[in-house]
Amino acid sequence: MEKRFETSLLFDFYSELLTEKQRDIMDLYFNDDLSLSEIAEINNTSRQAIHDTIKKCEKVLLVYEEKLNLLSKNHKLKETFENIQSKLDNLQINIKDERTNQLIDDIKTQIIEYI
Amino acid sequence: MEKRFETSLLFDFYSELLTEKQRDIMDLYFNDDLSLSEIAEINNTSRQAIHDTIKKCEKVLLVYEEKLNLLSKNHKLKETFENIQSKLDNLQINIKDERTNQLIDDIKTQIIEYI
Repeated sequence: MEKRFETSLLFDFYSELLTEKQRDIMDLYFNDDLSLSEIAEINNTSRQAIHDTIKKCEKVLLVYEEKLNLLSKNHKLKETFENIQSKLDNLQINIKDERTNQLIDDIKTQIIEYI
Repeated sequence: MEKRFETSLLFDFYSELLTEKQRDIMDLYFNDDLSLSEIAEINNTSRQAIHDTIKKCEKVLLVYEEKLNLLSKNHKLKETFENIQSKLDNLQINIKDERTNQLIDDIKTQIIEYI
C-alpha cells in the first residue's frame, strides 16, 4: 500500500488518540491536502516543525495499528461483507419468487448501510 | 451493563494499550478471577496498590472507549450479523431447492466464523 494512502487510512481510525494539535496538522496535510509550508504559516511555526510532527504522528499511528489492528480488521470485515454480497447475488440468479428476492434485497441493503 | 462485566469487555478490546504491568494485573483480576490480596502477593506489593492500579485502568479503558468506541461498534456489528442470520433463517423456510439452501448455509457459516 502506498505510504501516504496507508497513513491517511490509519489517521481515519486512530485520529482521536493523537493530541488536538497533532490531529489538526494531520488533518490539514492528509485531508485538506495543504503543503508543509502552508500548514507552517497557519500554525505560525517552521516547515521543519510541521514535517517533524507529521513524521512523529506516522510512527504513532503505526504503533496503534500494531496494537489494535483496526485497519486490518476492517479490511477483513469488508472482504467478508463483499463475499456475502456476492453469494447473495448468486442466490438471486435462481430465485423467481418475488417475496424471497425482496428478503435477499433487504439483507444486501443492510450490509451496504453497515459498510 | 454491570460495571465489572463492562470493564472486562473493555479490557478485551484495549488491553494492548495498557502497560505490560497494568495488563498483567488486570488479567489476573478479570480473567483469572484472583482476589486483590492474591495479586498483591504475586506482585510483592500491597492490596491497596493493586486496587489503585485496577481503578486507574478502569478509567483509562473508559477514555479509550470514549475515543474509539470499539465496544459499541462491535455490539452494533453483532446485531447486524444476528439480524442477517435471522433473515437467512426466514429465507430457508420457503426454499426447497437443496443447492440454494446449501448456498444460504455457506453464508451463515461465514458469519459464524467471522463472529
